[in-house]
Amino acid sequence: MPTPDLPNPAHHDIDSMLTRKFGREIANYFSGSPLNRVSFLRTDHSFISSALTHSSTSFLLFNDLAPLSVNTNKLAYVKHEDVSKFIGGNPFEKTEEEIVKGYNSSVTLPLVLFLGLDEEKKGGFEHGIYKGTPYFAVDVTPRGTVEGEARKLVESMKGKGLSFAEGRVFMGLSAPEAAIYAHARSLLDWNARNPFCGGCGQPTISINAGTKRVCPPTDFASLPTPQGGATTVLSEPRQRAACVTRKGISNLSFPRTDPTVIMAVVSHDAKRVLLGRQKRFPPHWYSTLAGFCEPAESVEEAVRREVWEESGVHLGRVVIHSTQPWPYPANLMIGAIGQALPDGEKIHLEYDPELEDAKWFDMEDVREALRVGVSGLDEPAGKGYVEGNLRLPPATAIAHQLLKAVAEGFLDVREASKI
Amino acid sequence: MPTPDLPNPAHHDIDSMLTRKFGREIANYFSGSPLNRVSFLRTDHSFISSALTHSSTSFLLFNDLAPLSVNTNKLAYVKHEDVSKFIGGNPFEKTEEEIVKGYNSSVTLPLVLFLGLDEEKKGGFEHGIYKGTPYFAVDVTPRGTVEGEARKLVESMKGKGLSFAEGRVFMGLSAPEAAIYAHARSLLDWNARNPFCGGCGQPTISINAGTKRVCPPTDFASLPTPQGGATTVLSEPRQRAACVTRKGISNLSFPRTDPTVIMAVVSHDAKRVLLGRQKRFPPHWYSTLAGFCEPAESVEEAVRREVWEESGVHLGRVVIHSTQPWPYPANLMIGAIGQALPDGEKIHLEYDPELEDAKWFDMEDVREALRVGVSGLDEPAGKGYVEGNLRLPPATAIAHQLLKAVAEGFLDVREASKI
Repeated sequence: MPTPDLPNPAHHDIDSMLTRKFGREIANYFSGSPLNRVSFLRTDHSFISSALTHSSTSFLLFNDLAPLSVNTNKLAYVKHEDVSKFIGGNPFEKTEEEIVKGYNSSVTLPLVLFLGLDEEKKGGFEHGIYKGTPYFAVDVTPRGTVEGEARKLVESMKGKGLSFAEGRVFMGLSAPEAAIYAHARSLLDWNARNPFCGGCGQPTISINAGTKRVCPPTDFASLPTPQGGATTVLSEPRQRAACVTRKGISNLSFPRTDPTVIMAVVSHDAKRVLLGRQKRFPPHWYSTLAGFCEPAESVEEAVRREVWEESGVHLGRVVIHSTQPWPYPANLMIGAIGQALPDGEKIHLEYDPELEDAKWFDMEDVREALRVGVSGLDEPAGKGYVEGNLRLPPATAIAHQLLKAVAEGFLDVREASKI
Repeated sequence: MPTPDLPNPAHHDIDSMLTRKFGREIANYFSGSPLNRVSFLRTDHSFISSALTHSSTSFLLFNDLAPLSVNTNKLAYVKHEDVSKFIGGNPFEKTEEEIVKGYNSSVTLPLVLFLGLDEEKKGGFEHGIYKGTPYFAVDVTPRGTVEGEARKLVESMKGKGLSFAEGRVFMGLSAPEAAIYAHARSLLDWNARNPFCGGCGQPTISINAGTKRVCPPTDFASLPTPQGGATTVLSEPRQRAACVTRKGISNLSFPRTDPTVIMAVVSHDAKRVLLGRQKRFPPHWYSTLAGFCEPAESVEEAVRREVWEESGVHLGRVVIHSTQPWPYPANLMIGAIGQALPDGEKIHLEYDPELEDAKWFDMEDVREALRVGVSGLDEPAGKGYVEGNLRLPPATAIAHQLLKAVAEGFLDVREASKI
């Protein structure tokens, strides 16, 4: 957790001896947030209320998951006065208990998410021992009973020359903005995807400043689901059906993050690298293999399973290198480096036919591609690229960082043998 | 992915040079499954059907998540004939398309989960290029329209002298059985927790041999939810309300795994270790800090955030060590080792008041505790333990493996400086 007095540890090489032993720590794109989430303060009614309404506080707005932006390389922030009417002034004025007791499923409550404090920006906000500039995100997608107000807000932002940046991947931001965007996008998406309880099917409500959803025991709306037809508002709330998530702690109440494995695979002698390609990739463009971690699998097992399923190659040793949050919609990419078993290098594509091709490349070809063949999927290759040679993903992808690590000898047995 | 011809790579020290560079790969408890999940065959109707009904196939039964067992150290397996009546013979006889088209939410379908093939046990099952003993798990919890049949099955098993082992943690199994148990438990639990669609609130159905749930577009039951009252069976299925999960791929259709960070923290000079304790721990019993990974956080960031929130200590370098599936209910524990910044070692418990205590221990005390002070939470300390000294978790916990790694110099800067 970076503080104002200390450099960001992810970028600060505190100990070159460690670096020599383990390689440099990589802060992948979408990680490295400048915000302190102070996660334990989300339930602190008085803290969240005063952070929300402070004059220094920054609000990031999302319309259908597209962030309000100056341009595709810069997010736009607004102030509390700009969103106050839409969010109903201060939705955190009531305690969480009061919010749940007053639950009326026929009324849409805009999602207001507390992101954290930028402790390096001292904008005058102070609450007890905590200081910094508060950041929030608001979902302004026109829907439900706030559809009209949301449209007005969206139009007023467009009137200021700002736009809601479209497109699934938003890769031109500075590293700190990319992390703030990823954080907000993940949580707004999770809230939007989960309006109902998986345990009982009834609608849920957001609490903990946007980071938890609970299944309230009562409802002022007369009908159990909005799909039932015209609802009326009751003077006394009705009891809802029992729900298992109301007893103890349920993981269904908390955001979902899907662990994914992605791996640079080297041959047993570490002289070649296994890469694969999907049909949709441009010609000569390859990447590392990847897949979702399954229930009750270690990351190391998932790496070996996915590599075998997609390429037929059998791995021995697997070492975890670094991780990257990937907010489309909620992946945690866990990057690993694996070494093939001496007699496990033969490629078989007949098991899981997910890849169009999988192939061993000489390490020198990978090094050359990292120098001149790097680009996004829809971009041209770099300067100096010779048509027909290998093309690889850009530096914002963890795949690139893993390949760079093996090209630099992270799992080079020849180098290791000198230790 | 282990095969019959190759040793299990997790236990096979393929390259002692790599071990010298990165330390030995640890296969934590609950990982190291002997089964090949052949995940791509789950949708292969003909494969799953013939695996289910083969005479060599083993079935693991769970009653309310308690596995059928010989004793607390050994699982019991049954044959297809033992469960055939309960599961309706062969539920995979129909294609997935037919199953979804015939969906009737008023009928309970027992959950039948394909676990994989044990390729080292050649029991005679063969299907194309795939050979081995198939493993399935069945949820026999008495519920819904199969309550009576389930009770009969449970009683017949008890009549054979077997029991459904109670208790949340099931830690006496051999390593391969622990992995099979964890795999089955995770997926049965996920299915049981998610009978409704989080996107639209309507009931869902299991497909892909127990590893996916979808929201069918039609229903032969007359009422939208079982909570609505008495339902009738329609001669033509009714259309259900629209659901976003039916368009494209939705992560809500797939099992949920919650990534968790757990970390051994060393002081900047690597001479001391930071440990914490909760109120419920026995006296002198400490463990590593841990917490859930949040949306759009890298593992490295989550480690730094949790350590700061719970103890006030600021970390620099974070290295990921190994991972452990933890099926209560669906955690993936990602074990890391972190080093405090030189001026970040002061302990503060006033931020997130989750721990009763957090304290720096001399490495020598940790080494001594690993020798004689190791036990489960409800067990006595080991032989030779001197009352008042540090106590630590057992070898089945990744916390123990992380502490062992630092005690053996995994992040020892003095050792690293010699490289």
